[in-house]
Amino acid sequence: MKAAKLQAFTPLFYLVWSDDLLTQKEFITLKEFINSLTVLSQEEKEYLLSKADISNPPSRNELTQWKSDIEKSIQDTSSIKSIFDIAKALSGTDLDLTPIESDFKKLENDLGFLGEEALQNFKTKAGSFTANSQTNASFDIQKITQILDGKEVAIIKRVKSVISRPEFAYETSTDINVFRQTVYKWCKILADENLGSMAYPKEYGGGGNIEDYFAIMETLSYHDLSLVIKFGVQFGLWGMSVQSLGTEKHYAKYLKDIGSLKLPGCFAMTETHHGSNVKGLETTATYNHSNQTFTIHTPNKNAQKEYIGNAAVHGQMATVFAKLIIDDHDYGVNAFVVPLRDPNGNVVSGVTIGDCGHKMGLNGVDNGTISFDNVVIPKDNMLDRFASVNDKGEFESPIPSDNRRFFTMLGTLVGGRIGIPRSALAAAKSGLTIAIRYSDQRRQFGPEGGSEVPILNYRMHQRRLLPHLAKTYAVHFALQYLTNRFLNRTEAEMQEIEALAAGMKSYSTWSTRDILQECREACGGKGYLSENRIDALKNDTEIYTTFEGDNTVLMQLVAKNRLAEFRKSFGEMGSLGIINYVYENAKTAIAEKNPIATRRTDDEHLLDGEFHLQAFVHREKTILASAARRIKKLIDGGLEPYDAFNVVQHQMIDVAQAYLERLVLEQFQIAIKAVEDENSKAILTKLNQLYALSQIEKNKGWYLEDGYMEAVKTKAVRKLVNQLCWDIRPDAVALVNAFDIPESCLVAPIAV
Amino acid sequence: MKAAKLQAFTPLFYLVWSDDLLTQKEFITLKEFINSLTVLSQEEKEYLLSKADISNPPSRNELTQWKSDIEKSIQDTSSIKSIFDIAKALSGTDLDLTPIESDFKKLENDLGFLGEEALQNFKTKAGSFTANSQTNASFDIQKITQILDGKEVAIIKRVKSVISRPEFAYETSTDINVFRQTVYKWCKILADENLGSMAYPKEYGGGGNIEDYFAIMETLSYHDLSLVIKFGVQFGLWGMSVQSLGTEKHYAKYLKDIGSLKLPGCFAMTETHHGSNVKGLETTATYNHSNQTFTIHTPNKNAQKEYIGNAAVHGQMATVFAKLIIDDHDYGVNAFVVPLRDPNGNVVSGVTIGDCGHKMGLNGVDNGTISFDNVVIPKDNMLDRFASVNDKGEFESPIPSDNRRFFTMLGTLVGGRIGIPRSALAAAKSGLTIAIRYSDQRRQFGPEGGSEVPILNYRMHQRRLLPHLAKTYAVHFALQYLTNRFLNRTEAEMQEIEALAAGMKSYSTWSTRDILQECREACGGKGYLSENRIDALKNDTEIYTTFEGDNTVLMQLVAKNRLAEFRKSFGEMGSLGIINYVYENAKTAIAEKNPIATRRTDDEHLLDGEFHLQAFVHREKTILASAARRIKKLIDGGLEPYDAFNVVQHQMIDVAQAYLERLVLEQFQIAIKAVEDENSKAILTKLNQLYALSQIEKNKGWYLEDGYMEAVKTKAVRKLVNQLCWDIRPDAVALVNAFDIPESCLVAPIAV
Repeated sequence: MKAAKLQAFTPLFYLVWSDDLLTQKEFITLKEFINSLTVLSQEEKEYLLSKADISNPPSRNELTQWKSDIEKSIQDTSSIKSIFDIAKALSGTDLDLTPIESDFKKLENDLGFLGEEALQNFKTKAGSFTANSQTNASFDIQKITQILDGKEVAIIKRVKSVISRPEFAYETSTDINVFRQTVYKWCKILADENLGSMAYPKEYGGGGNIEDYFAIMETLSYHDLSLVIKFGVQFGLWGMSVQSLGTEKHYAKYLKDIGSLKLPGCFAMTETHHGSNVKGLETTATYNHSNQTFTIHTPNKNAQKEYIGNAAVHGQMATVFAKLIIDDHDYGVNAFVVPLRDPNGNVVSGVTIGDCGHKMGLNGVDNGTISFDNVVIPKDNMLDRFASVNDKGEFESPIPSDNRRFFTMLGTLVGGRIGIPRSALAAAKSGLTIAIRYSDQRRQFGPEGGSEVPILNYRMHQRRLLPHLAKTYAVHFALQYLTNRFLNRTEAEMQEIEALAAGMKSYSTWSTRDILQECREACGGKGYLSENRIDALKNDTEIYTTFEGDNTVLMQLVAKNRLAEFRKSFGEMGSLGIINYVYENAKTAIAEKNPIATRRTDDEHLLDGEFHLQAFVHREKTILASAARRIKKLIDGGLEPYDAFNVVQHQMIDVAQAYLERLVLEQFQIAIKAVEDENSKAILTKLNQLYALSQIEKNKGWYLEDGYMEAVKTKAVRKLVNQLCWDIRPDAVALVNAFDIPESCLVAPIAV
Repeated sequence: MKAAKLQAFTPLFYLVWSDDLLTQKEFITLKEFINSLTVLSQEEKEYLLSKADISNPPSRNELTQWKSDIEKSIQDTSSIKSIFDIAKALSGTDLDLTPIESDFKKLENDLGFLGEEALQNFKTKAGSFTANSQTNASFDIQKITQILDGKEVAIIKRVKSVISRPEFAYETSTDINVFRQTVYKWCKILADENLGSMAYPKEYGGGGNIEDYFAIMETLSYHDLSLVIKFGVQFGLWGMSVQSLGTEKHYAKYLKDIGSLKLPGCFAMTETHHGSNVKGLETTATYNHSNQTFTIHTPNKNAQKEYIGNAAVHGQMATVFAKLIIDDHDYGVNAFVVPLRDPNGNVVSGVTIGDCGHKMGLNGVDNGTISFDNVVIPKDNMLDRFASVNDKGEFESPIPSDNRRFFTMLGTLVGGRIGIPRSALAAAKSGLTIAIRYSDQRRQFGPEGGSEVPILNYRMHQRRLLPHLAKTYAVHFALQYLTNRFLNRTEAEMQEIEALAAGMKSYSTWSTRDILQECREACGGKGYLSENRIDALKNDTEIYTTFEGDNTVLMQLVAKNRLAEFRKSFGEMGSLGIINYVYENAKTAIAEKNPIATRRTDDEHLLDGEFHLQAFVHREKTILASAARRIKKLIDGGLEPYDAFNVVQHQMIDVAQAYLERLVLEQFQIAIKAVEDENSKAILTKLNQLYALSQIEKNKGWYLEDGYMEAVKTKAVRKLVNQLCWDIRPDAVALVNAFDIPESCLVAPIAV
């Protein structure tokens, strides 16, 4: 620079010309500043102005020189707080800057927010805490795996060993015919390992162990999901429909061949025009007493069976749901075993099969349509556990109501709504394992002058993945609870368990949808490459929210069940009971809603499991009571119940959601109580807290509307969610490794 | 039944045995009731008890008989309010029910909530308003189309006519090699139609019309999205990089052949280890003054170019971004034209191309990796608009700072961040057209005894689709605004426009992600079949949230820009200005936060556009000021800015989000003001209200925390969102038809 005296302005010009965000307006500001400085001569001003002329930038070398000048003249970089400090250091004794200090600082302020960052170029690095965070497990991974696997550890290990064999290498062909054959071959291997028949009675060649069957479904889901669904269609839907709806004669005739995959079959319920509303199925099974047969018939195009797994290629038989007609009377929907193909694979006469073709995912499963043109089957083919035609040709059933009989039949098939959410959970675990491992290795950006930092160190990235990780652990234990309730069910509990299964099926599959979406985005371009498998995980599980019952429809059922239970408990309590209930509830709410509680923001309180559960229970009860009141009011006001339920559909989803969230939290807490190892308990507790608080944060609008929390508290919750993410981050990789997914199943290059 | 007197109990038993939800407990309740009736003899009680024995159900015929008995004996069904009313009608004079009326009604209550529904079996249908809603447009579809197309109508029509030709029939092969060739062929047709070169200067064979180019990108997006991306890579990224970063010699040499697709090329910026942080690219371009060449080199595996469109198969040249090295000095990232293949398609010596292989979507685009092993190119191949090497071998640039130069170069490429969100929007329009048309036709469930009802009549289904429809209209006008700002840009506005483009790119692509996800689920199993195209729309646009800048990273940039603007406006105002700002803002906030305003729930207020805009602006300003204060506090407290920004990352997303929401709302309002046709104005106003209120509902937690609204108001907003959905439903099909997407592009069988 021309005069040593003017050195003081070097850092200013460096800032101006190196910063990325200055505009013409700011150049004007700078010029005004220079012109206003009375300590400078006109010549000096003009020299300085020439350096602040947007049309006459310094050369790149000049800029570099300025930087080097500045660096050389600063001895103690730690004391630098502003550009002005640098200016002072540079000018030394040549110029007394005191008179222009305030103007200079104002200018510095005006020149933009990012001056702070420019300043970093000249400061000694203090060390960034963002950069220093890293993977460092606080617990024994194997112990967490043991807790997750529980007593199913043996069958889980066995399945893992089978799917890790070389013949289970993923199919990479995009030709669906090739893919379908590969999946069939895999199913055959599993059948040969006696895994398919695991749930069937031992006397019919099965393993007699439904608990193991669920564990098999879940563990297989670490591998290709077409395999799981094909496996589930054959051994679950087809085999279990025979087992649940048929009687001994059917078991003896079919179960062994189904379990060995000698007899591939289908579960033919859904029709083109009847998916959710299966009660409206139109396929008919007309009884002919003269020759003791049923005639299965598809009355119109829209009554064809659709989306039927195993139909397009492999199925030889199907459990077909059809309205039973005897003497022109309709006896409601019943189930019949109907042949589709002969053992050579030729479609039998009267049956027409269509191919659903390419799908968003699960292309290893051969979904198809089936139409029947007066196909005659013997009387014995009626699955007659719940209804039959007697020797006189009369209808007989222990359940007189057609509706109730049909829903009882469906109730026996509730196992599907346990297998699917567990499979979805496994897919979420795979996605999280891939995304979290990658985020721990992938580096991008970093502190000025330092190395780049793992993206998992960024708060937003933690926010995107770690609450999902916590939720996945939470759902794991809730699904174990669901399974146990199902295994130990009594007749009286069936309706509750069916609602629980419908709800958890929705909760888990929606959770998986969200998790895999976030994993895809969190892995950026790598998450888009099929080699990293998030692609397949997402697209395969996409239909999980629809099949085995559309989630939105199921949630309405769950809510209706909750409302019915609510009404019943009122009924049992009697009028006095209701008054007590309302009074007790109000008392608790008031106690919890006192200003001290609604504004409490200390960590001890906010991390307290009891507080969490109370908050969840309060929400569940309040929403339920409010929905019940509202529906009653609408009906009392003259609406048809059908219309009333339509008006409150949105609220019904909340009823179900609040119930499920409470249940998931509660089961996670109960599971943690049983853990003995201290380190395992500690990390699971943190995950539980993160699950609880992120749900509260998600629902904060509701809590504020209700008055259960005040703004100061919901803000504290948000802060604590951030903090918990930060605290869990060093354990994140260990937590996904604890899922213990076979590396041969993960395969994603970014997850190695 | 045995005695006429006992007929009174028929409806009760019918309810018990036909209802789906009764349990053993309820049978006990019923038995207790019967036992308690003193009006009956012991024999009569026993007879009745036999009918309430869970182990001894009536036959199906008996149940049917009961129903028919009941139906016959009721004359005036309209007066029936309870089961007890039926009982009275049935018993006639045989039994005086008055003494047991209260017990009977209590029992009826105890037996379950769904008694109301069972009762429906016997009531005259009052007509369901849910069932009666139907499609009935309130406006002229063509007028809305005109408003959407604006002055681009001619080019839009032309493109639609081209992509409706038979040769644009969708590729159904899953073989990516076949698909890639088809897409290339389509691009060639478009090039022959002079659509590819639309944005290039006329003197180089182009159309000289960038506005039309954007409209082309958007309209092509109604067709296959691989086509759009391949088109965008060739004519946008590759061609525009030459046009924006090069000089006349490059235009003359390349632009004509690029526009005609004679010279397919790539845009090679991203490297395996540098995606978001492109400043850290490692590929080098070393200048050799002796022979006036550059040597392009990939120093390590992780510095290979990755995801490069057009690389795997077709590209013959690429704009390669690399650090310029002269005499061992690093002059930052610059751009060079580098040959990849000869005209016969053979890869040139020193270049290694990899194939990214199968992807989640966009499989018609040949993404690949590129590595350079000391590839020598002539000096003229440097794209030298912003930097060059002079005859003496010295670096020259009008922009001295390497960073600023690089970001200036990137700024010239901002067009990509306009084309992509517009393409995303078009995909959302396609998805909504398919899902809404299907929902209008698909019927499922219905009032008791009535026909099934279009699923779009269900409140949840409306909630799932119609706010998205409103948002899509809103985003349409915001993207037109963005385009106009870009077309009329001045140098001084560039930073703001770049931030706006980055923000709208994120906003639109995330919106499309959510919309297509919802469309998939809303179409159930049909939405999973590839033939209905939601599959491809979702998977193809999935990467839109990542490429052209990862959305989360872009949102941080937008927020930083907002913070810089905020700081600047403070700077310009001076200290007094700041005080005034704070005072004014507080005054407005206080005015808007008075108890009357925060609790106002009348429709007139809640539907008022001024209220909406005020609420959005208040949120934007408050979040911005709060983030600025927080960052300042953190830095003043001793945090490195890098760490401080990490701590507030989550809040930064809110800063950007609130800014974008305000902008989208405002532009939609401005656009509506210009509409003259009354019916068009009315429906667009409704959509605008739905957009505004659903955003407020989404953000209600924030508004409650801030005190800008009280619970009574946010609850009223929720109710009004439901009501607006209901009101817009009859117009929904017409509103998607107004997008005027060629049927040949929609093709989905469910959308016909």
